[in-house]
Amino acid sequence: MGTAVSWPLTDNGYAVNLIGTHLDDAIIDSCKKDRFHPRLKRTIPNAVTPYHYNELGQGLQDAAFIVSGVNSNGVRWIGSALAPFVHKGARIIAVTKGLEAKADGMLVILPDVMRAQFPEQVRDAVSLAAIGGPCIAGELAGQRQSCVYFGSRELSTAKELREYFRTDYYHVWTTNDMRSLEIAVALKNAYALGVGIAAGMLQAAGGVDASGAYMHNLAAALFARGCREMHTLLLSQDADPEFAYSLPGAGDMYVTATGGRSVTLGRLIGTGMSYERALAEMTGETLEAAMVIQQMGKALPAMVSKGIVQKKDLPFMHFLVDLVVHQKPIDLRLDDFFQDVISE
Amino acid sequence: MGTAVSWPLTDNGYAVNLIGTHLDDAIIDSCKKDRFHPRLKRTIPNAVTPYHYNELGQGLQDAAFIVSGVNSNGVRWIGSALAPFVHKGARIIAVTKGLEAKADGMLVILPDVMRAQFPEQVRDAVSLAAIGGPCIAGELAGQRQSCVYFGSRELSTAKELREYFRTDYYHVWTTNDMRSLEIAVALKNAYALGVGIAAGMLQAAGGVDASGAYMHNLAAALFARGCREMHTLLLSQDADPEFAYSLPGAGDMYVTATGGRSVTLGRLIGTGMSYERALAEMTGETLEAAMVIQQMGKALPAMVSKGIVQKKDLPFMHFLVDLVVHQKPIDLRLDDFFQDVISE
Repeated sequence: MGTAVSWPLTDNGYAVNLIGTHLDDAIIDSCKKDRFHPRLKRTIPNAVTPYHYNELGQGLQDAAFIVSGVNSNGVRWIGSALAPFVHKGARIIAVTKGLEAKADGMLVILPDVMRAQFPEQVRDAVSLAAIGGPCIAGELAGQRQSCVYFGSRELSTAKELREYFRTDYYHVWTTNDMRSLEIAVALKNAYALGVGIAAGMLQAAGGVDASGAYMHNLAAALFARGCREMHTLLLSQDADPEFAYSLPGAGDMYVTATGGRSVTLGRLIGTGMSYERALAEMTGETLEAAMVIQQMGKALPAMVSKGIVQKKDLPFMHFLVDLVVHQKPIDLRLDDFFQDVISE
Repeated sequence: MGTAVSWPLTDNGYAVNLIGTHLDDAIIDSCKKDRFHPRLKRTIPNAVTPYHYNELGQGLQDAAFIVSGVNSNGVRWIGSALAPFVHKGARIIAVTKGLEAKADGMLVILPDVMRAQFPEQVRDAVSLAAIGGPCIAGELAGQRQSCVYFGSRELSTAKELREYFRTDYYHVWTTNDMRSLEIAVALKNAYALGVGIAAGMLQAAGGVDASGAYMHNLAAALFARGCREMHTLLLSQDADPEFAYSLPGAGDMYVTATGGRSVTLGRLIGTGMSYERALAEMTGETLEAAMVIQQMGKALPAMVSKGIVQKKDLPFMHFLVDLVVHQKPIDLRLDDFFQDVISE
């Protein structure tokens, strides 16, 4: 995604410096050699200049803003790496999806984790922003229609940054509620993994039957439950629950469930494989979904004991924690997943 | 679906009389001959007795309740057909999805359309129920995990009926808010057609590109927009907006967008085909989604002029009405689809 945003930026006439981490040398080598990005399988735009990590200082020179595209394991690292270069008024867009849990059950968004790595004297004078919404990087790079939110605690930052990016295919709305945006976008990965379990259960049951029956009904019920629980979790975090049902929640979960790593991991677990074995099958992949579930495994007991959620209100997340953290076998108690609805 | 519910019913030990309409003679012939249901591609359970339409009276004898599985064109017809047989205390479950619009912009659910056909002296003494939630009939017949709501204005009716159906694979919750349930379930077909347009636009753009880019980002944005607009429309109808985000709304739209007729029609229109031509391609198919959009085409001007919705709050439904009712070419103004979110 860090590279994919080069397309709208260069289409708008801006120059982009693309800096790999120390893990991206092969990608940057390829970009330098013949301008081909092997992950996106595309020739990068002319106005993109690739840099190796050891050229970081040069690549950052005179940048109007920085886009950080590391994975969620790399957030502290990129904070430290950028620390010597950030100055008061610097603007950083974090596209990493994830969250961390505090001991009291409150969730911390990754831009704030990154910020904590910056020198104290500039820390609060750096403007952070985040992007959320259904946007597969390869499609953005292919200039396909995509709709996202830019969030920043200062609305002006989100609005200024949006002007660099918006094109007739990249549609950007803004919010000053970056925390709600980021929590929704992180949770959707966890629940998309959960939706993927249906495909694995289908496989374990022998696949599509002779009459053509899949397990889409189950996947859809899990999807709906994911929407409800994102709403509940956002509320518990004093965040705006509406993000559960818009581009960052339902929309982003929809596109993630259509493909992607989270749903593949879910499918493997759904076949009956333990989380550890499923993880081993996916060596080299970044599994943001699993990391979010692990953090929720820390947060949930504290959230329940503080009374900001009730265990019965989050059966799906507890199920996911049982699978991923406690490596229990699949025990999907669907009867607990919804409730009768009585109106007065 | 009328046939598919035989599986949970017979698994619970009940006998089912399966009565075809005059259009279903070939299906019933097949069921009588070798118990094979050609549409579901399955052998029907032993406890199902198939009846032709001319055996209606015999088939209805001593029925504890009736399940009506006609399509939305057939709702008045089935009401008239059942009229001689309904009595005070009769219970009818309507699985048809659709709605009708009144001149004042208020939406009428199909169970009430059916009820109006019954003799006046029993009309109000018949208990009607409806089923909503993500449930592909072929999967229910395959005893796949499925989660639905049973709705009836009398909660006791929904609860009594549920007891006949619930099994370890058919999970049923109840609501006394049948109208909200039915509106959500009807609207989801319309919006699923809209989600399908992305696949057609992809086809028109030459398909998946050389780097593997689909148009899933667009489909997901449309999906998210559909969720929002179901919420807005439910509110406008004094209905419970939460149904937009649960099994009947988001969940049912998810499973419909995964396959099914609505999304196929959307795909055809998305390629640039007029609605009429797309319809011609799908001869013989029941297109509940198009019928809902046509009804919304009647309702929207009245709703807007009454001030219960604003045109700008329903850009996606207006777009769908333009395509299906006014047969305009595709003009997807995504910039109108979402708004900045400012929290205090």
